[in-house]
Amino acid sequence: MTATTSNPLSLFDISGKSALIVGGTGTFGAAAAHALTAAGCKVTLADRGADKLAAMSEELTAAGGTVAMVDNWPDTEANAAAIVDAVVTAHGRLDLMFIALGTNDVAYIEDQPFDDWRKVMIANLDTYWLACQAAGRQFAKQPDNGARNKVVVVSSTRGRHGLPSGYTGYCASKSGLDGMVKALACEWGAKGTNINAIGPTVFRSPLAEWMFSEEEPGRSVREKMLDRVPVGRLSETDDLIGGLIYLLSPASDYVTGHTLYIDGGYTAD
Amino acid sequence: MTATTSNPLSLFDISGKSALIVGGTGTFGAAAAHALTAAGCKVTLADRGADKLAAMSEELTAAGGTVAMVDNWPDTEANAAAIVDAVVTAHGRLDLMFIALGTNDVAYIEDQPFDDWRKVMIANLDTYWLACQAAGRQFAKQPDNGARNKVVVVSSTRGRHGLPSGYTGYCASKSGLDGMVKALACEWGAKGTNINAIGPTVFRSPLAEWMFSEEEPGRSVREKMLDRVPVGRLSETDDLIGGLIYLLSPASDYVTGHTLYIDGGYTAD
Amino acid sequence: MTATTSNPLSLFDISGKSALIVGGTGTFGAAAAHALTAAGCKVTLADRGADKLAAMSEELTAAGGTVAMVDNWPDTEANAAAIVDAVVTAHGRLDLMFIALGTNDVAYIEDQPFDDWRKVMIANLDTYWLACQAAGRQFAKQPDNGARNKVVVVSSTRGRHGLPSGYTGYCASKSGLDGMVKALACEWGAKGTNINAIGPTVFRSPLAEWMFSEEEPGRSVREKMLDRVPVGRLSETDDLIGGLIYLLSPASDYVTGHTLYIDGGYTAD
Amino acid sequence: MTATTSNPLSLFDISGKSALIVGGTGTFGAAAAHALTAAGCKVTLADRGADKLAAMSEELTAAGGTVAMVDNWPDTEANAAAIVDAVVTAHGRLDLMFIALGTNDVAYIEDQPFDDWRKVMIANLDTYWLACQAAGRQFAKQPDNGARNKVVVVSSTRGRHGLPSGYTGYCASKSGLDGMVKALACEWGAKGTNINAIGPTVFRSPLAEWMFSEEEPGRSVREKMLDRVPVGRLSETDDLIGGLIYLLSPASDYVTGHTLYIDGGYTAD
Repeated sequence: MTATTSNPLSLFDISGKSALIVGGTGTFGAAAAHALTAAGCKVTLADRGADKLAAMSEELTAAGGTVAMVDNWPDTEANAAAIVDAVVTAHGRLDLMFIALGTNDVAYIEDQPFDDWRKVMIANLDTYWLACQAAGRQFAKQPDNGARNKVVVVSSTRGRHGLPSGYTGYCASKSGLDGMVKALACEWGAKGTNINAIGPTVFRSPLAEWMFSEEEPGRSVREKMLDRVPVGRLSETDDLIGGLIYLLSPASDYVTGHTLYIDGGYTAD
Repeated sequence: MTATTSNPLSLFDISGKSALIVGGTGTFGAAAAHALTAAGCKVTLADRGADKLAAMSEELTAAGGTVAMVDNWPDTEANAAAIVDAVVTAHGRLDLMFIALGTNDVAYIEDQPFDDWRKVMIANLDTYWLACQAAGRQFAKQPDNGARNKVVVVSSTRGRHGLPSGYTGYCASKSGLDGMVKALACEWGAKGTNINAIGPTVFRSPLAEWMFSEEEPGRSVREKMLDRVPVGRLSETDDLIGGLIYLLSPASDYVTGHTLYIDGGYTAD
Repeated sequence: MTATTSNPLSLFDISGKSALIVGGTGTFGAAAAHALTAAGCKVTLADRGADKLAAMSEELTAAGGTVAMVDNWPDTEANAAAIVDAVVTAHGRLDLMFIALGTNDVAYIEDQPFDDWRKVMIANLDTYWLACQAAGRQFAKQPDNGARNKVVVVSSTRGRHGLPSGYTGYCASKSGLDGMVKALACEWGAKGTNINAIGPTVFRSPLAEWMFSEEEPGRSVREKMLDRVPVGRLSETDDLIGGLIYLLSPASDYVTGHTLYIDGGYTAD
Repeated sequence: MTATTSNPLSLFDISGKSALIVGGTGTFGAAAAHALTAAGCKVTLADRGADKLAAMSEELTAAGGTVAMVDNWPDTEANAAAIVDAVVTAHGRLDLMFIALGTNDVAYIEDQPFDDWRKVMIANLDTYWLACQAAGRQFAKQPDNGARNKVVVVSSTRGRHGLPSGYTGYCASKSGLDGMVKALACEWGAKGTNINAIGPTVFRSPLAEWMFSEEEPGRSVREKMLDRVPVGRLSETDDLIGGLIYLLSPASDYVTGHTLYIDGGYTAD
């Protein structure tokens, strides 16, 4: 019996960690902010929109959190650096980073302006690379405290599956992200940092709310989709929290470069 | 904020669950037995070997566990049924099953008797199917308590990678297992049961101990292997416990049909 | 400009090769027998059933083929050896082997006798291993003629996708086969032999004919299936011939361990 | 016996087809230009550099080719459209497109300016999207001649494997390309167009020539690399030609969304 096997739930302990959530006011980001706060992290949210950030700050503080807010996106090297600097200023160092930015623009390739493809690639891939670069620079210069740094990004079942039509940007950005995760796992493995992805299928959010409705076309689109989800329901954000905690905590110290599908069995079907 | 995000570590709570560990006296099985006992499960170990079982029983009981032992392997329908019956007799029902049986026989295909191939396929695949069949029959007949049943099996990075030479049986059995997991995820998704695999690389065990040694050939085999492990070290059983808890607990209720690689980045490299 | 680029179609030349087709009277096997005969191979068919073999022999001879027939399956080491011996007796050596045996037995795991699972595993995996063993022994002892030996096996999209229910054996055998192919690619790469798989989706055969019909349930099962086939139709055996020739010919001398999906886009969807 | 099985080599016939090669003066592009010319295609090369294009034009014309040259890259919608327009002006329509552009910039993410990441993503992914958009628009408006249009792109084993360090852009662009291929396979499947990728490992080119040398560091880098290539040698461009012909010809009419690895077994190892 080891320390681990005699107290296995302690593996998931992330209390006291300084955690940055990029895209912290989006649906998954906000749920993560609440969960990491409740788990005892010192949380920094980066996103655009002062009002939403202020509201989140109030909520998290009311829940006992130690939080900081940055009204910014990692869309340039300078902006990414500013976000990480704000984390360090607020909480002294950066231990965990979760990136949950993203967008989509659905159009057949023949009908989609190049700028719309780029818009998807920027939000879903370039910003991730920039945030990882800034985090990597910080990891390299802060004192080693013996724990592995953790980065988790939001990929998708669409990184593996090309349907439905109109998703060239979304699919390419998400499979591209899976590739970037593998590359950084190789670069960072010996440097004390792990990086992994979570691959959800459709989860409830303001944008996807129509798919959870009994109104048409929500109902029929959902039913067709559920034909491919063995578990038989679409996802709630809550479904993703356990995997996120696992990948941010010491429990996953030997996991890197992996895409964890939390998809009700979609990728198995 | 939901109940989940306000108390995320409760997602990993498996206390009070009746957990069967098939192959419970092997290296990974025994570590799992300690971890699940510490996590508050009522544990049943199935394996061959009265002495080892008795020793495990004593250790786990000393650690405060509620345990049962079955001196058997699921190598026939009757033996698999007897194992599950023992679980139900001891603990009233079956909630979680972890299968960690396995063997290998290394030989070039031209030099390997068919019986040796079969021996690997039986230990690494047939027994898993039989244990799943018996568990599935039990899941179907016991009262639904509102929680999802969980099955976790031990796959391998060898399910994806064909090297080194001499592993036809090992590779085929592990990739076959990944396929069986997907098939059962589809069958069981709507029936309240999740099934997932853990894919380790080499972890310390009596059989693999030589690879951790400074003696030759251990040192050079290990160094060559480590060229492909970004994290820079081979695995300890402790590395696998967090993923096991995650996949057995409510934290993974929306994960099924997945192979979670806990491999130091081997499959990303 | 090289010899290759100045005459690229010559890459697909397999005339004069001694080719064994295991399962040579099945739908895919018989189509392959005609194609390889037309491509100038000396063909040996191994399968069970004297009448079908005699009929095939007549057809192929009428088409100008140099053929041999073996009424046998590679279900034991002795039977596999007898098949390869018949090839060598008839045509002097073995250059190419195509294995197209297979069966299925559809049942929920809880309802399926273990023997039925085994029946599927024997037909879809054990026989393949035995045929590969016998071929590997022959490859090792016959004179090297400077060309790479080629083995092609029939896998399936079901090696990646677990649906529909009732396919535990089929899915496990096909994913297991993909793993065996990778393992043998590693073992055989430096010994002059390539091995690859073809992964079809449903193709027209006596067994699948009902899915091509306008009668129910054929029509509705087909329509649901076609929702996941971007090309918009089920497969004909003819769709598989080009890939088979590619994988048997010098065109693929640098391809090994690969599963080539000929599936109308099923695995991309 | 069908027309296909009675004359299987005719499946690879692409004579008379109008084929566009984007990146036509690069190593793979130029080899493809010779091969497609020899196979009877009317070839258009698009690339930057008047001198190289003129030299290629001379070589291909001397070999009996009907060729056109466009000094351009598909880096904007207008440039991509101009390239496809040049094909149509020269040869009346577009039947086949092969895209073989690409670059790399090796640096740890912490040391790489964002513009260098973008440079890789533009050359390896954005240009591919733009070329596909322009081709898709042409496919939609030209008369249907009963044959499927074919697009083949150059991916890489790096779309699956993250090593070596310094490849975030290369890996992300190539895995992103695999995702784009799947998305377009789904979009285009019912519209008469197939799209697939070829995944090579290192092949001989001016840039990679040092890895084929007996000088250091070529020799040691190569030997380490060859540890992971079962076939035991690095690749020549000639190794890729057969797969390209297969994926451009009617032989692959039922293959779409696939990445065909021509890698000596690298991805199997």
